Parts: sequence; C-alpha cells; structure tokens
Amino acid sequence: MSTTAHELDLGQLIADTEEEILRLVRDHDPSTVGVYEQCRYHLGLDGSTGVSGKRMRPLLGLLAYASITGDHRAALPGAAAVELGHNFSLVHDDIEDGDSERRHRPTLWTLHGIPQAINTGDMLFSLSRVALHRLTDLGFSDHKVLRLMRLYDETCVALCEGQYIDIATSEADTAMSVELYFDMIGRKTAALIAASIEAGALLATDDEKVIAHYRNFGWDLGLAFQLNDDLLGIWGEEQATGKEPTDVARRKKTLPVIYAIEHASAPDRARLMELYRDHAATGAAIQEVIDILDRSGAHEYTREQARLHRDRALAELDAAGVVLPEARARLHEIVVRVIAA
Amino acid sequence: MSTTAHELDLGQLIADTEEEILRLVRDHDPSTVGVYEQCRYHLGLDGSTGVSGKRMRPLLGLLAYASITGDHRAALPGAAAVELGHNFSLVHDDIEDGDSERRHRPTLWTLHGIPQAINTGDMLFSLSRVALHRLTDLGFSDHKVLRLMRLYDETCVALCEGQYIDIATSEADTAMSVELYFDMIGRKTAALIAASIEAGALLATDDEKVIAHYRNFGWDLGLAFQLNDDLLGIWGEEQATGKEPTDVARRKKTLPVIYAIEHASAPDRARLMELYRDHAATGAAIQEVIDILDRSGAHEYTREQARLHRDRALAELDAAGVVLPEARARLHEIVVRVIAA
Repeated sequence: MSTTAHELDLGQLIADTEEEILRLVRDHDPSTVGVYEQCRYHLGLDGSTGVSGKRMRPLLGLLAYASITGDHRAALPGAAAVELGHNFSLVHDDIEDGDSERRHRPTLWTLHGIPQAINTGDMLFSLSRVALHRLTDLGFSDHKVLRLMRLYDETCVALCEGQYIDIATSEADTAMSVELYFDMIGRKTAALIAASIEAGALLATDDEKVIAHYRNFGWDLGLAFQLNDDLLGIWGEEQATGKEPTDVARRKKTLPVIYAIEHASAPDRARLMELYRDHAATGAAIQEVIDILDRSGAHEYTREQARLHRDRALAELDAAGVVLPEARARLHEIVVRVIAA
Repeated sequence: MSTTAHELDLGQLIADTEEEILRLVRDHDPSTVGVYEQCRYHLGLDGSTGVSGKRMRPLLGLLAYASITGDHRAALPGAAAVELGHNFSLVHDDIEDGDSERRHRPTLWTLHGIPQAINTGDMLFSLSRVALHRLTDLGFSDHKVLRLMRLYDETCVALCEGQYIDIATSEADTAMSVELYFDMIGRKTAALIAASIEAGALLATDDEKVIAHYRNFGWDLGLAFQLNDDLLGIWGEEQATGKEPTDVARRKKTLPVIYAIEHASAPDRARLMELYRDHAATGAAIQEVIDILDRSGAHEYTREQARLHRDRALAELDAAGVVLPEARARLHEIVVRVIAA
C-alpha cells in the first residue's frame, strides 16, 4: 500500500478512526440500546456537529504507524482503542471533578446520573479492549497483538495511578511539589500519548531502537502538551485547542501555581495560598494570582519546560531515522498545532 | 504435576489466589501507595480477618482447570484476573447503589469519597488485565492467552450491558419483565461465572466440545446462583453465603417480585406495586409483600427455575466427560454449598 497526500490528510484519518469506533458502539440488542447511545453521545458520534474531541491520541498513533509503513489503515483498531480508553477516563474524570460541561455540552453524569455515567465509562473501557482484537483479524501476529495489549494494560494502570495522585492532592492539603507534579502528569497524560505512538511504531516494525525512539517522542510530547495546556489555562492565547483560561478561577493547581508556591517570595506565597483557599473567583483575585505567578517566574519556567520537552520530542523523532517525509510533516504539524509554547 | 487431596483443598486454592492477587496490588511507588492500599482494603487483603469474599469465581475457574489437568497452579493468573474484575464491578456497584456497607465494613466510597472509589475501581479493572499477562510467563501460547483475553473482554462488555439494564430499570419506571430479568442476570452474573469456568477449561484443553460443556456448566450455574441469591434475599434460610433476607426492605426487584407483578391477582399486583413505591420498610409491610409473593406462586417458580438451571449445570459437567473425580467432587461441593434451592 502506498501513501498519497490524500491518504495522510488528517481529516481522513479522523473519519476512518470514527468509523472504526462506530463499529463498536453501534446498537447491539434492543435491551441495551441506551448504553450505546450514551457512548455515542459522549464520543460526539451521535450526529451532533462540532462536539467531538481533537482525536489527538489516535491521530498520533496512526501517523506513527504510517510514518514507517506508508499507510495508516491497518493501525485503525489501535487508534480506536486509545480514543475509547481516553474517553473512558474523561467520563469518569467529569464525575470525579464535578464538571457539568464538556465541549460545550452537558456531561454524561448530568444527563443520566452518576450511576449510569460510571457504568458507561466502564463500557468505553471494556470496548477499548475489544477494539484491539480486530488487529488479529487484520493479520497481525498473536505475539504482536499481545505485546500491544500489555503496553495498553500497563498504561491504564499508570493512568489510574496518576488520577489517584491528582484527586489525593486536590482534595486534601497533601503537599504537591514540582517533582510530584511531573510524576503525576507522566502517569496521567504522557503515558497514554506515549503508548499510542509506541503502539503505532511497534505494529509497524520489529526494530526495538525505532520503537524506543517513538516511545520517547510520545513521552516528551505528552509532557509538553500538558505544560502547554497549563499555560493556556492561565494566560490564554486562544488556540485551535479551544482551551479557555479558566484554571485560576477554578483554582486548579497546575505547574505554574505549584512552582510559585515553591519559589515565590514569602509574602507572595502566603497571599497565593490564601487566594487559593478562598474560592470566590472575582476578576481582581484572578488578576492578583496571575501577578504573583508572573513575579515568581512561573510563566517563564513553565514555558521553558514546555519548549524543552517539545524539542526533545522532535529530536527523538529525528533520531528514529525511518520516518517518511510526508508523515513527518504531519507529525510536526500536530506538534506545532498542539504546542504553541 | 499430579493431584493430591491436599492440593485441591479449597482453602489452599483461595490462599494461592490471594497470593497471586497480592503480587499485583502490593505497593509500587511512594507516590501511589494510597491507591494500592484502597485495593487491598476492598479485596479484604489488608490483614483484616473475615472480610474477604467467597472467591467463588476464581475457585470455579481453578477447579475447572484442575478437573482436566490435575493441578490448579498454572491457572492462577486467570483466577486473579476474574476476582479482580469481579471486585472492580463491586466497587462501582457500591457507588451506583449507594451501599454504605459490604462484608460488614464501610464501602470504599464512604471512606475515600466517590472520586477515589471510582478511580480505585478503574485500577482493579486495569490490574485484572495485567494479571492475565503472567499466563505468557507460565508458558501458555500467545494464541491461547489472546483467546482468553477476548473471552474476558467480551464478558466485561456483557457485564456493563447487564449493569445498564439494572440501573435503567431500577431508577425509572421502565417496565421490567421476567424475560428482561433473565436477559439482565445472564449479562450481569452468569457471563462472568461462565467465563471463569470456560477460561479454566480452555487453558486446560484444545477440545472445543469440552470447552463448550464447561461454558454451559458455568452459564447455568451462574443463573442458578443468582436465583438462589434472590430466594435467600427474601425468604432467608441463612446460608454459608452470609446472605441476609433484606431484599424486600430494600425494595430490590428480584425475580420473585417481577414474577408476582406479572402473575399475581389484580388486587395483589396493585397492592404490591403500591408497597414498592412506598419506601417505608415496616415489618408489617415486608410481611405483606412476602404473603403476596407466596400467594402468586413466586417462591415456587423461582425455586423451580433455580433447580432447573442447577440440574442443567450438573448435566453439562457430566457431559464434558473428562472431569477428574476429585475435582468433580469439589465442583459439586461448591454447587451444593452455593445453591441450596
């Protein structure tokens, strides 16, 4: 199979991924229609427009695969799995965080109650596993499929570990630190992005060095993505990501805030912690927080870290050495689109 | 490996299963200790005594495997997986049902809050998948392990489908029927018990007929188990299961109630539905419900159905024809112990 410019059109990759997912979340039996309807609603595959996610994880996995083989299609079951797995975690996160809106629509739990939403999250998780078995039907060896599953399963454990740290540190006054924050986002964000890209590479090649470079590319890209998200969540600069600068109003303890608590002057630190305990989100309080962050060097530090990991990611991609030019261009396109830092 | 009476001692099988599980839920990194502590607490593996479950599902799987091969040990990763998977669903069920106690201890969500409990359930689910990969280390072929995973993954989908029906019919006034009830418990209860036993058989043999008989054995056993649970939940007769007759007080719509709504006289039906809408659980109201159930023939019908499926289960086991006598005796022991009907 050869690559044409058309085949690596990102829109086409997304359309193919969604078709692969729809195969799994279509109605099955009359008695269970409702749970599949909930899956399709959350995934933005219920016919509404403009409410699906960016499909960043499956795109990266498909491009990784295509960058080595020249075509993305055989990797579609892996792309579907990672998107379903990501969305399982979003459904549960929305309950855990009490978020009532996602992508400008009511979250699943606000529409169907917490019990159904927990269960629909479990269903998306289960379906993400079922998705992977189609790799066998497409001709991948049992050994390859099993290795990919082990990668996916261990990644899910990491996701839950990261989420545990997130909930534990946001609920209690458990001390968060810059070090623990990187530990957390590694598990919660970078692990799945790295796994998606590693999965694309390991389906495409048996060369362990190439696979390792792709994995490292994904890991650093995942960290850079999260740090960029932290920047946008505070200082805005509206991006293609649609992220709005509401993190301070919501008192989210992202890297800039944690950095400032560690590095600001004593009075600034005391004032910052006071502002974070007080949940009234007036415009003046938000501006005061941002001023403290700016004075402490938190903006600069976070931007530097985001750039560092983005540059490391691109260097790993170059080091892999097997990347087809067109796929490489698309990967760069995503890196730049997602990470503006 | 040969079987001795000692090796098929049920207590030993449980101890070996718990050791296999503990390997997965031990502490890993300092930053994530808490989530593994929660796992061990829920599983009754935190050093407390008398608070673990019956381990019925892993026992059945191990006995199925040992009944063909003469030893249970190589099947322990499968046993750990099914017990972890079962417990993931219990952690989420406890939140979904608002249950504050399980096995005479506070449920996870009452101790750690709903967010952590959702996440710990997800962790148990993830670990159940990781458990299966040790089958590869123990020498099972990739093909065998992958087939077992497909069985497990499809079973998890069935579990979520069953749970969807359960929540949908208990929350809303969605019409429940005897037919839909069997559809639900097939997915919610029988599927995992059948899968556990089928998994034991398919690890032990390539004979598809034998595997199918074991699966059918597990399916009918699972249905009989649930119906027996329904009987105990209303008419008591305290069993080794520890089940207490609180289903009427909690207004649970189990088979006897659904049967009575379909088959009782018009006045009895109206009164039963009225009593179920009124959530005051006085002793007199409970007795009135039980009288209506008795008059409608619900007790007899449910007992007949439980016996029917139990007898079918035992006939399937006999039809498999490869069962070692001692393992067969243990399987019968469990069937009789679990199903008193």
